[in-house]
Amino acid sequence: MLAYFNSTRDRISIFLKSFLEEKRPRLARVNPLGPDAADRLLDFALQGKMIRGCLVALGYALAGAASVPATPEVTIAAGAAMELFQSGLLVHDDIMDRDLTRRGRSTLFQQYAELAAREGRADPGHSGEALGICAGDVAYFLAFELLAGLDAPPAALQKVIALSARELTAVGVAQMQDVAWGASHAEVKDEDILRMYTYKTSRYTFSLPLMTGGILAGAAPGLLDLLETFGETTGSMFQIRDDELGLYGDERELGKPIGSDVREGKKTLFYSSLMARVSAEERQRLERIFGNRDSSEADLAYVRDLAVARGVSASVEGVARGLEAKARDLIGRIRTGTEADRGALGDLLDYTMARKR
Amino acid sequence: MLAYFNSTRDRISIFLKSFLEEKRPRLARVNPLGPDAADRLLDFALQGKMIRGCLVALGYALAGAASVPATPEVTIAAGAAMELFQSGLLVHDDIMDRDLTRRGRSTLFQQYAELAAREGRADPGHSGEALGICAGDVAYFLAFELLAGLDAPPAALQKVIALSARELTAVGVAQMQDVAWGASHAEVKDEDILRMYTYKTSRYTFSLPLMTGGILAGAAPGLLDLLETFGETTGSMFQIRDDELGLYGDERELGKPIGSDVREGKKTLFYSSLMARVSAEERQRLERIFGNRDSSEADLAYVRDLAVARGVSASVEGVARGLEAKARDLIGRIRTGTEADRGALGDLLDYTMARKR
Repeated sequence: MLAYFNSTRDRISIFLKSFLEEKRPRLARVNPLGPDAADRLLDFALQGKMIRGCLVALGYALAGAASVPATPEVTIAAGAAMELFQSGLLVHDDIMDRDLTRRGRSTLFQQYAELAAREGRADPGHSGEALGICAGDVAYFLAFELLAGLDAPPAALQKVIALSARELTAVGVAQMQDVAWGASHAEVKDEDILRMYTYKTSRYTFSLPLMTGGILAGAAPGLLDLLETFGETTGSMFQIRDDELGLYGDERELGKPIGSDVREGKKTLFYSSLMARVSAEERQRLERIFGNRDSSEADLAYVRDLAVARGVSASVEGVARGLEAKARDLIGRIRTGTEADRGALGDLLDYTMARKR
Repeated sequence: MLAYFNSTRDRISIFLKSFLEEKRPRLARVNPLGPDAADRLLDFALQGKMIRGCLVALGYALAGAASVPATPEVTIAAGAAMELFQSGLLVHDDIMDRDLTRRGRSTLFQQYAELAAREGRADPGHSGEALGICAGDVAYFLAFELLAGLDAPPAALQKVIALSARELTAVGVAQMQDVAWGASHAEVKDEDILRMYTYKTSRYTFSLPLMTGGILAGAAPGLLDLLETFGETTGSMFQIRDDELGLYGDERELGKPIGSDVREGKKTLFYSSLMARVSAEERQRLERIFGNRDSSEADLAYVRDLAVARGVSASVEGVARGLEAKARDLIGRIRTGTEADRGALGDLLDYTMARKR
């Protein structure tokens, strides 16, 4: 799947570089922090897998207008906008989660905090957060400016902007839930968790870019519906896999600490399923572990072992397999695009199920 | 000036209410925090003066297509989007400035912090900030969705979205400068301050909405240029007046503490002008006062008296008067719109110079 997207990813990287390069003089006119923020955002975006950006090209290809990697430049520009949105969201996320590193480097707000400390500014931690909030905002605004300048029919352009704004609103609201739950021992049901996944991850990460590509290609409503549902399904599978890796993965491969979801008290499908199957006593012990930054390796092992013993790991895996089956069925119903493009959707599922990071 | 805009402000309030009401079911589908955030944002927006929102109608009127208050609904919708942008920016600003009250009420992030504390959530202060970041993001996204749905010719719509995004990017970058300066005893020149005002306040508050109205009315490029420059000029005057009120105003009328700019170490035209005219010894004393949350009333009186004694207050007032004269000259060059509409621009200047809050 990644090889299939390699050239698209390269095209998006090149586009993003030249888009931000073109904005430099205007940003520099405001003040030197403008081009500096653009550099940091570019650097940040280029480190990502760019799944969202690449899916725009795939959505376009599946409408049958052109095949990946020969989709027109407008798919690359829209993909670059998706990556800027994602950068803005992650920059804000890292502030909320107080994550100081991402992909082995300082997170953006932490970079600003380090800079403030070096320059001897007052309260560098707060200064870093404030500058991070601004930088995330700037990423969103640049993305919308990029979308507004797309070389696309006006009706398509309008739809893409409205859809992006709508899905980002939902991401923001789902993130609020994630934050509120993370700081409490909220009683959450599996379906609440799955709904949060739908809006925080699935629709935004998969449905939005696939549909954006489809809209730009003038896809029929039937195909847009299929892409939307495929995105929701695959996204939830993706998120569950993410949860699994966060609990059972390999820290070196993953590039982030195992168990951070537990220590941060994140509410995942593991959490809701586990809490539904434990005794009052076990629940008390788990509540001392979840959301506790000082939870030990032994505590994490206890969570892992209990999840296996109570069949939680198996049941979560079952949910993921069910979603996978549904997604494969949806692929079978797509009649447009080349076999290679449709095959890429299947590869995406394989990749999601097999990924280690 | 305010009376002239009264009915426009009412129309924007009604529009915002119904726009957010219409979004409720969709937000509720994500989770209950969605409609709750919409309520809080509406409440927040309705408390504002809505200068930005109303200026869209005035910009439209000045193109000669219709007069205030009879401008078409599209000007009201675009005005509502401006107010949502402003709400998002202020919500984020309050987090950065750690302002717990605004207009005599808890700021949005502080409302969330109080709620988190009442619900016994861990670390309510951080939870409030995180939810505030999300709510500000949601305000931006709702505003862009609103703009994307405007009933306007596609080319105008595209221009309005691109212009909004561009100016908001500049606001974000100017805000970064404000944050970085606020936490240090940076040596800033008057022209650096004035450039920050242009991008952080003037263009965004005045040029953007006036031009948006003009674009929606199909205004000639010459008029758009005039509105842009008028906005920059008036906005800087507005900001200087704001600084004056923050130092010499009446706390009860202003609704916020006098001297907070000094205590927060905000870099204003007063600051740059004052620092350029004091001895090394005075500078040392000022540096202990600026950016010090514990500065006393006596410290503030020292700053005020020194600014008067060194002619800083008079020179800043002179800059404001110069901007006013330039703005009046620009008004004289507008040939379209009714006399009442052009008169409103003059009233805007009078209001800005005379306002107490």
